[in-house]
This record gives sequence, C-alpha cells and structure tokens, in this order.
Amino acid sequence: MKQTLLSLALLALGTTSPALAQSDYQTDSIFISKIFNAALSEGKSYEWLRGLTQEVGPRLSGSEGAAKAVEYTRNAMIKEKFDNVFLQNVMVPHWVRGAKEKAYILSGKQKITMPIAALGGSVATPKGGTKGKVIEVKSFQELRALGTEKVKGKIVFFNRPMDPTKLNTFEAYAGAVEQRGAGPSEASKLGAIGAIVRSMTTRLDDIPHTGSMRYASGSPIIPAAAISTNGAELLSKLLKENVDTEIFFEQFSETLPDAPSHNVIGELKGSQNPAQYIVVGGHLDSWDFAQGAHDDGSGCVQSMEAVRLLKDLGYKPKNTLRAVMYMNEENGLKGGIAYADSARSKNEKHLAAIESDRGGFSPLGFGVVGTPTQKSRIVSWSKLFAAYGLHQIGPGGGGADIGPLAQSGTVLLGLIPDSQRYFDYHHAANDTFDKVSKRELELGGAAMAAMLYLVDKYGVE
Amino acid sequence: MKQTLLSLALLALGTTSPALAQSDYQTDSIFISKIFNAALSEGKSYEWLRGLTQEVGPRLSGSEGAAKAVEYTRNAMIKEKFDNVFLQNVMVPHWVRGAKEKAYILSGKQKITMPIAALGGSVATPKGGTKGKVIEVKSFQELRALGTEKVKGKIVFFNRPMDPTKLNTFEAYAGAVEQRGAGPSEASKLGAIGAIVRSMTTRLDDIPHTGSMRYASGSPIIPAAAISTNGAELLSKLLKENVDTEIFFEQFSETLPDAPSHNVIGELKGSQNPAQYIVVGGHLDSWDFAQGAHDDGSGCVQSMEAVRLLKDLGYKPKNTLRAVMYMNEENGLKGGIAYADSARSKNEKHLAAIESDRGGFSPLGFGVVGTPTQKSRIVSWSKLFAAYGLHQIGPGGGGADIGPLAQSGTVLLGLIPDSQRYFDYHHAANDTFDKVSKRELELGGAAMAAMLYLVDKYGVE
Repeated sequence: MKQTLLSLALLALGTTSPALAQSDYQTDSIFISKIFNAALSEGKSYEWLRGLTQEVGPRLSGSEGAAKAVEYTRNAMIKEKFDNVFLQNVMVPHWVRGAKEKAYILSGKQKITMPIAALGGSVATPKGGTKGKVIEVKSFQELRALGTEKVKGKIVFFNRPMDPTKLNTFEAYAGAVEQRGAGPSEASKLGAIGAIVRSMTTRLDDIPHTGSMRYASGSPIIPAAAISTNGAELLSKLLKENVDTEIFFEQFSETLPDAPSHNVIGELKGSQNPAQYIVVGGHLDSWDFAQGAHDDGSGCVQSMEAVRLLKDLGYKPKNTLRAVMYMNEENGLKGGIAYADSARSKNEKHLAAIESDRGGFSPLGFGVVGTPTQKSRIVSWSKLFAAYGLHQIGPGGGGADIGPLAQSGTVLLGLIPDSQRYFDYHHAANDTFDKVSKRELELGGAAMAAMLYLVDKYGVE
Repeated sequence: MKQTLLSLALLALGTTSPALAQSDYQTDSIFISKIFNAALSEGKSYEWLRGLTQEVGPRLSGSEGAAKAVEYTRNAMIKEKFDNVFLQNVMVPHWVRGAKEKAYILSGKQKITMPIAALGGSVATPKGGTKGKVIEVKSFQELRALGTEKVKGKIVFFNRPMDPTKLNTFEAYAGAVEQRGAGPSEASKLGAIGAIVRSMTTRLDDIPHTGSMRYASGSPIIPAAAISTNGAELLSKLLKENVDTEIFFEQFSETLPDAPSHNVIGELKGSQNPAQYIVVGGHLDSWDFAQGAHDDGSGCVQSMEAVRLLKDLGYKPKNTLRAVMYMNEENGLKGGIAYADSARSKNEKHLAAIESDRGGFSPLGFGVVGTPTQKSRIVSWSKLFAAYGLHQIGPGGGGADIGPLAQSGTVLLGLIPDSQRYFDYHHAANDTFDKVSKRELELGGAAMAAMLYLVDKYGVE
C-alpha cells in the first residue's frame, strides 16, 4: 500500500504516466459521476442478485441449479436488450456431495457431534465411515517430519489457522489454503486414511467451509473434509488432553462423468472496432450448499450491471463490450479456459478483461496484470477512481477466470473490494443474499463500468 | 476526496507539513504495526461488544439497561487494570416508549397494518389514538406553501428520501434528517394533529428507524412517529390512488423526570504530564429497542480497546490517556456536555479528543477539527495511516460528544469508517451484534490507538 500511495502521489503531480488532458479529465469525471449516480439510484444488480441467490440458489457445476443460473442470467440480459446474448458450450466436472456428512469426535467417554463438509473433489469414505486416531499438524514440514510410522492408519488434522494479522485476508488465505488443496495427498503419501482440514476463515464459528482439493497422481486416494474453526479448536484441545482422541466421519460424495454446461455472454456491439473486445465478468457457479451471494453472484450481477449502465446512459462503445458469466471457477476453471480458447480460435482481440470475484464489498481499487505500458495507462486514470474511494490501482492479481486470456496479451483487471468480511462467508452456507449490502454491491458495479468506459475510450497501449 | 488525494500527494513528497524524520517514521511505523497486529490477533473489543449488546442490550438514557452498561464498561476497564476507573455524574432526560405502537393505513376498504416507531421525545397520541387524512410533503417549503387551510386537522407525512447518490451516506442523512428533528413542529404550526416521518435509511425494508425530535417553543405539541421505508412507499402510492387515505396511529411514549446516570472513564496515567489529557470515546446509550451494536457499542469498545492496546503493548504515555463512555448522545448530549464542563472546572488541559460514532466498519480516515497548525500536524502522519487503508485524514466533523470540548482548544478527531451500511441499521431494531464484523471493528480500534499514540508522542502544536 505504501507503494500505491507513492505512485498516486507521483501521479497526482503528473510526473509518471501521461496524465489525462484537463478537458478529457472533466468529460470523464462527469460521465463517471453519471455512472455512479445511476448505479446508486436505479441500479439493477441487487435485484438480480436476489434472484440468482434466492430463486436459483446453489449452482455447482453440472447441477440443476447451474443450468437454472445460465437461464436466469441469459434472460436478464435479453430483457435488457443487449445487442447479442448467447451461450458458449463447456464440459464441466460434475462432483456431488450426496447425503449429508456425519462426524463425531471420540475422546474418552465423550462423543461429540461435529459439523463437517466434504471437500470438493473428495471421494466418499468407505461405507460405514472412516474412524481413526488423529494426528494434528500445522504444516507439511511438520507432517513429513512425523513420517509414515506416526501417520500410517491415522487421520491427519491440518490445523494451521489463517493469519489474522494480514490486513489483506487473501494473503492470509494464500498462506493456509495449501492444507485444503494438497493436504489430503500429503497425508495419504504417509499412509493416512483420511484428512480433516480447518476451515479457511479467521472467524471462530460452527460453519464448515468447503473448497476444492486435488489428488496428486500416484498418491493413495483418501476422503477429506473441512471442519469448522470452533470444531478445530475443540479437537485440538481434546488432543492435548488425550492423544488417543479419535474422529469418525462418513461422507457420500462422488465424481460423476463430466457434464455439458455453458458460459453466458451478453454483448454491446462496438461502433468502430466490433471485432475488438473488452470483457467484464464473474463466475456463475457456486458451491453446492451456498447461495454464493458474495462468491460470486456479486461478480456476475456487477458485470451485467456494468454493461447495462453504459448502455442505458447512451454510451456507444468503440469496441464490443461483453459481460461474461464463466462456469466452473470453483472446481475446474473450464469456463475461463473455454472462453480464452474460443477467443483465440476466432482471432477475437481482447483489449482487457475485468473480473469481480472477491465479493460484493466496497470497492477499493483494481489489481492490474499487463505490460509496463499497459499498467501505466491504467494507473494514469487513478484520480478518476480515487474520487470514489478506489485508491489502489496498481499491480495485483486479475482473477482466475480471466487468467487464461493473459497469454494473448489481454490486460487483466481484478476488482479489489474491502477484504475484511470475505472469508467469513467464503464457500460456506452463510454466503447468503442478506450478507450483501446493496450500496457496496452497486459501487463495485459502477467502478467496473467506469473502467470499461475508460479502456474503451483510451485503449490500453 | 480529490482534495485529500492531493494533500496526500504533496505530503508523500514532503512539500507541506513538517514530515516525520525518517527514524521517527520507522519507529512509529513499527509500533503501529504492533498495534494493528495485536488488535487483529488478540483483540478484546469484539467480546466486549458481544457483552454490551447481548448481555446488556438496549440502554437508552435513564433506563435499567443504561445503568447496566455503566457497570459493564466500568468492570471491563477495572479488569484490564486501567490506572483509574471512575464514574462521572450526569442528569439525563428519561423518555420511555411505553407499550408497542399501533398503526394502520385506511384506504377505501383496505386496512393495512404498519410498523411504526414513536420518535424519541415525542408525546403519546391521545388515548384511543390519532386518526386523520394525510398530507404528503417532501420539504418544509412545500408544507408551508400548502398553508394552514390544507394542513389543519391532518397528519403530515414527511417523505423526502435520503439521496442515494451521495457517496458519503452521512451527507444523505444530513439532507433529510430535519424532517425528523423539526418536522413535527413545522407541521403543528399549521394545525396538523400528527406527524409521520419516512425512516432515515436508503434501504427499502419494513423496519422503522427512530431518532430524536424536538418541539419548537410555542408550537402545539403533536405526536410523531417514524414509518419504515416500505411503509412510506406504500402510503405514498395509496395517497396517489386515493387522496382520502387515512392513517391511524397510537403510541404511549412519555418523558419522565430527568434521571441520574453516568459517564464512565478509564485512565492510563501520564508519566510526564499527568494533568494533560487525550481522550478517546464513544457513547454508551442506545435507542430503547436497539442493541446499538454499531451505534455506538462499537465506538465504546473500540475506545476501551485503544487504551488497552497501548497499555498491553507496554507503552508509557507522556500524557494521561482516557477512554470515555459518554452517556446520552442520542437524546440530550448531557454526557458530552458534563464531561467538557468538568474538564474546564478542573482545569484539565485536553490536547485532543477522538470519537468513534459512525459504526464499527472498516476505517477510512479521521476528520479533524482544529487550528491550521493542529490540522497540519495531524495530516503530517497520513502516511502511517495510509498503510492500513486510512486515506482520508483531513477536515471533517469530530463527533457530537466531543464537540463541547472544542471551545477549550482541544483538537477533535472523528474516526471515519466506510459509511455504506451505517444507515441500514441506524436507530433500528436490526442494529445487532451479528451486523458487526470482528475484523472491521478491530481495525477501527487499532486506528484510534495509533492516533492516541501519535498525539501523545508528538503533541498537536
């Protein structure tokens, strides 16, 4: 952030990038204020989000909910009279949770029922469940040091919390999530019969957070589940009191054959360069027990809204603008990959791709991935965004779904909202519509519309 | 905000205020990071807030809840071994709502029940309730233009919404709240028999938001209540369809004799200038049907936490630091006035007073009230705060409770959190503990601790 401040400082004094001419700055400033005013006074994103979360609901890839979400967003864009609304075929993984998991801790005479959630991609336990003594570890290093002798036949309990002192909670997530993604195979290599992973949240509560895991090739395949943070604290405490503490869990998940699904795309045709594209998007799939309000219903409705705002304000884009709902970010990224493949095969030049996949919270900036020239161009617009509280325009991640476009030279822009609350809800059953603030959601959509407008007007080179 | 950006820009280049020496900057930067780390990893404010909202609950001045809140916060600071914890006597207004209000709309054959809430300070309706035709207005100008002829014997319905396009929702509030504070007397001057005021929120929902009103001297005293925003929309629609639409409401509120109460003060003694004070505070009272989690339980626990953090990090203040829980901000400000009076009568020099009364949301900055020299000193620390997302250090309001200290030359500092959600909950029954994010609350407390530290170390001149 200090770096960002300095670049803003230099920018405001016009010592770095080519600043906007004063007349352009005024025109843009006025148009962007119209965007924000329209978003806050007659925005549509919040009602769309209500529909997507409460009428459609959970929408894991391959599910009926996902198919409904495709129709819901397609119809929304048709109703808004976008120039062109179409579906793009994608084959997606089809993992299902099956019946609700069961789990309890056995410590001495105590038997304590625990809420758990199978990790996405995990196999079921053997019929009748998996039961065993528990080895708690905080790192792979610690696990490996224990070796096969101490791990074999046991259930490995990965209990490294997200670091609460990281101001950016995504950094805290990045510092802990390997336990979920790679932990089960790290454990099975040493003979473990199951893996239990502390939920990825800094909050202490009883809600398990799922998320994807992957089996390393060649490692034995064992069942893996997330335990709530309160559950993790309790299990850890009981293990300290009694090393013979056991855990039992039974889950019924399975991976079915890949299923046909779709990306959903709505266009506003470019008036000068219709074969040049700028896309704004989010991912349409959510986890199976979550409304996916923040992850990533918000990003979807903000993307449709960004294009709608420009359309309804009468803006005639030079390039073709697209709102893209990517399918399958959560457990495969097949939608993002298919979109980029299609763009390449059709020689569709994509100037920039904007993504919102960090929740519908107050926007603070954009992370930019591109060449130094491209970054400098984007940063030159900082002052226009700072007026709306977006002070962080600078290096950062774009987003998973738009990542595959990078190799074609497309600038990637990831909306950065306030991250403090995101992991309270991420991949969990409490990621519901009521957790989203209408105004915060609308501000994010408006910021994306403003970025679309500036990229369209000035290009990125 | 543009102004703020520019001042930050100039600051970062060292062209305005006396910037901190590099060695000081490093020392301060390290100590402030310790404050934030401690707040986020072992903070106490969230659990205090749980107690204040869920164990104590509503705490309107003069109520049993307010007395419990005094004991709760006093005990919390004693338990933390503050150097000195004491109460300051304050006589406060004692308004009570009485039994739950009743209200319905009568339009043709329809009778529609409406949730309403008596405004703080309002009288009861006559026994059996008040019923009458309704005159809807958006402004006092419109009301006055109607004149006595059209208003007499009717119920005036003030229905000007908060402007959703204001990025800072406090500006939107300021643009609408006269309807609540002064509307009833404006209506009664023209012969109205009651006043119904649209709730002060940009949200559309069924929850009435109360708040204080005052009768102008010489105007007839009529009952006044808030109606929810959905209720206001419906009433307005029905009035357009049928000008004879009536409203009935019955409320039982009354003002009892003033009651004894207290400000609660906890101190950390100064090592060099113990008779010089820096205070940090929030207000302890809430409305009678609200847990007052954001308004202003958050400000209270953040204030105790700010002092505790410095204490537990081993900081030895030069001046005496005080956490002050002011009583009666909502309907009288008697606590703030009593505190300032006491300080003056005891010749206690107060360098600065910090207040948090805008909710426990992610902190964005501080508003500063003081002389140009004082402001420039505070602004010179901006870079230290920008690292934690606080980009707005500049002119702004301090806070109601600390306002009375201004005449003694005390610098006033108001914490500025993100304002997007505040009026979703303000003065309403949904201002509950679950609406507060632990991390956002903690960041605000840490920011206040950092400001306390800097004021203590460098002074304000």
